[in-house]
Amino acid sequence: MSESHRSIAFSALGRRAAPPVIARLMSAALESRDLLSLAVGFTDNATLPVAPFGAAVAALTTEGQTSELLQYGTNQGRPGLRRQLAARLERDEGWTAGRADPERFFVTNGSQQALYLAMQALCDPGDIILVERPSYFVFLELLTGLGIEARSIPVDAAGALDLPALDRLLATMRRDGSAGRLKAVYLIGYFANPSGRSLAVAEKRGLARTLAAHGLYLPTIEDAAYRQMAFDGSAGAPSILALDEWAEFPRLYAGTLTKPFATGLKVGYGCCTDCEWLGRMLHLKGHHDFGTANFNQAVLERVLGDGTFDAHLALLRPSYERKMRVLHEALLAGGLAASGWRWTPPGGGLYLWLTAPEGLDLGIDSAFCRACLDAGVLYVPGALCFGDAPLRNTVRLSFGVLGEPELREAARRFCAVAASA
Amino acid sequence: MSESHRSIAFSALGRRAAPPVIARLMSAALESRDLLSLAVGFTDNATLPVAPFGAAVAALTTEGQTSELLQYGTNQGRPGLRRQLAARLERDEGWTAGRADPERFFVTNGSQQALYLAMQALCDPGDIILVERPSYFVFLELLTGLGIEARSIPVDAAGALDLPALDRLLATMRRDGSAGRLKAVYLIGYFANPSGRSLAVAEKRGLARTLAAHGLYLPTIEDAAYRQMAFDGSAGAPSILALDEWAEFPRLYAGTLTKPFATGLKVGYGCCTDCEWLGRMLHLKGHHDFGTANFNQAVLERVLGDGTFDAHLALLRPSYERKMRVLHEALLAGGLAASGWRWTPPGGGLYLWLTAPEGLDLGIDSAFCRACLDAGVLYVPGALCFGDAPLRNTVRLSFGVLGEPELREAARRFCAVAASA
Repeated sequence: MSESHRSIAFSALGRRAAPPVIARLMSAALESRDLLSLAVGFTDNATLPVAPFGAAVAALTTEGQTSELLQYGTNQGRPGLRRQLAARLERDEGWTAGRADPERFFVTNGSQQALYLAMQALCDPGDIILVERPSYFVFLELLTGLGIEARSIPVDAAGALDLPALDRLLATMRRDGSAGRLKAVYLIGYFANPSGRSLAVAEKRGLARTLAAHGLYLPTIEDAAYRQMAFDGSAGAPSILALDEWAEFPRLYAGTLTKPFATGLKVGYGCCTDCEWLGRMLHLKGHHDFGTANFNQAVLERVLGDGTFDAHLALLRPSYERKMRVLHEALLAGGLAASGWRWTPPGGGLYLWLTAPEGLDLGIDSAFCRACLDAGVLYVPGALCFGDAPLRNTVRLSFGVLGEPELREAARRFCAVAASA
Repeated sequence: MSESHRSIAFSALGRRAAPPVIARLMSAALESRDLLSLAVGFTDNATLPVAPFGAAVAALTTEGQTSELLQYGTNQGRPGLRRQLAARLERDEGWTAGRADPERFFVTNGSQQALYLAMQALCDPGDIILVERPSYFVFLELLTGLGIEARSIPVDAAGALDLPALDRLLATMRRDGSAGRLKAVYLIGYFANPSGRSLAVAEKRGLARTLAAHGLYLPTIEDAAYRQMAFDGSAGAPSILALDEWAEFPRLYAGTLTKPFATGLKVGYGCCTDCEWLGRMLHLKGHHDFGTANFNQAVLERVLGDGTFDAHLALLRPSYERKMRVLHEALLAGGLAASGWRWTPPGGGLYLWLTAPEGLDLGIDSAFCRACLDAGVLYVPGALCFGDAPLRNTVRLSFGVLGEPELREAARRFCAVAASA
């Protein structure tokens, strides 16, 4: 089967589709034998729930209902799973039972698909989305692919939303007409990828008030992918679903069930306050795949219902907290803070976000990045994580994949490069 | 959590996203207690591979590699699964080992996602796709959602491609300029949904020659979803991947691994002869979900490798052939042929395609359709299955879901309505 040589006239979308920038780094990495990755945002294989997963599947495949689990499901997702999701949201928000409606939920191929569907339904090429600074780089690439522009919400020196500065930005955008292209807001509420930060309740409330003051009741997405991965097991600040200031905004709350459980099952979900938006996303999902794999949903429905999921989270959280501390302390021991790098150990999630002294370029084509590859350590250049005005002196380090000894060695290599930079 | 009331300015894509027409029928159906569905294209629960699937998962979850299976996989799909897919294609095409390159394959969330990615990469709104007459209605709805126009390849009275008529159509389209908007061809090579027909090798060769004569080396998709479901187990005519006349055309061959196995695992694939097209589809998949559930792929890799998959197909084929015969004979016994309806029992797949006497309207809003709902039998109006100039006197009947007694009863109800129509 040889290559066909007639050239193709691709669509505008097809022409925009570009390899993820990170792929360049990954292929460079493949040339190195002994590379330790602080880049990949995977969970670690050591804490994957092999035994509980096996037990759940064994039970499912010997019970009467098995054949239904191997059949197609519905486009929106299993009703039983959506009831579990509603109940978990009620627990996390401290709501009374019945306040979250399972009919507002839909099940997706990882939370990524929920984000993609949301953007497809809302945005035409040239439209603008407000994002945090930094924001999730896979989402930013998704926006680029759809021809959507990301505009950063200004932040202060501590990384908190700078709402007076946002107020001025919105005023400028209304004057120059670009506010008309603003179509949505994307927030990462809990232990964000990449910053590790959570939004405080005051930031969430203030953001809604600032937008409302400009009459911009934009559809707003809160990505809660890491909410279950708080080291202390708490649910954190209320989501935008639970705050009165947001009541008039169309909102989509997106999460994953498998990142902190059996990652390779890829089951995510959304919960949407706007019936029409939800309906349009579901129609688009009907075109993508007309429903996420029913069997995977059935496994999740079972492990949520019988306590297996929460028992696994209880094991996972201290494991990731320990690994975060190992990386944090190894970076301190390597002299990184002493030479002017700054970071805050997060209370959950998988990431440390580091800022180097100003002027140090850590970008994908930098001497620093090449030196790290040569030294056998890989990171995500923070510059990839900005919708605009990237800070080239930032990096995202993940403590997700590596074990404790490898984290120490990776930190040693990273600090050695930093010491000679 | 109440409905948010601020209205949303949806994208052009979002505004086009409409509920599938068939949903109207389904919700009408929900009001009926005792409804037998000849509409749904599901497989039947009775032949789902509960025991073999359970055994495969039990083996996978007790072997050493388990944790890897519960981790993220790659965007393109498991290399071992892609090697199995290449080997199966070689077997089906009668190729020597090594002729199919696993690097040309990619794994998707059902074959539907491969079709969606292909259309995203190739077509802008207003572009035109050539389709068969009739064609797969879910694909036609996907086109409508993306703003793409479907133009039918003319067919003769027996349903075969009418290539002289296509030649005239293409000449007309070149004269009026609309040929410039032609971006792809979509074919269903084997036991098509909905017609049950397979394309003969002469039709495939002739189509390529007709297109080439107009200089239209259009990217062409062959949907082989039902190729494994030939009642006699044969691979049928060579696919367009194997025919010299197609060598210069960029081609995508799409299939499913789970429709004829564990349907609820939702694993499909594509094999593409054009590196750039493949690359762009993969970048788009990276934005959709960055990879199909790794665990599901691992199950398929295993059952393809150890013969479980083929053993299941060997059970499945006679079961569906028997059910096809039951429906076919019950329709004959009900006097349908005698009253002028025509159909051809297919050699595989899940569908009978019936043409009623001219002038009889079987459309979704027809008296006939309402009478069938009242009588407790559901079908897919054939009019939904045309890109243009729908024939309203056609229906698709599926023998996939119902058992043999239910098929007889459904046929009895259908024939009773037809008799009084």
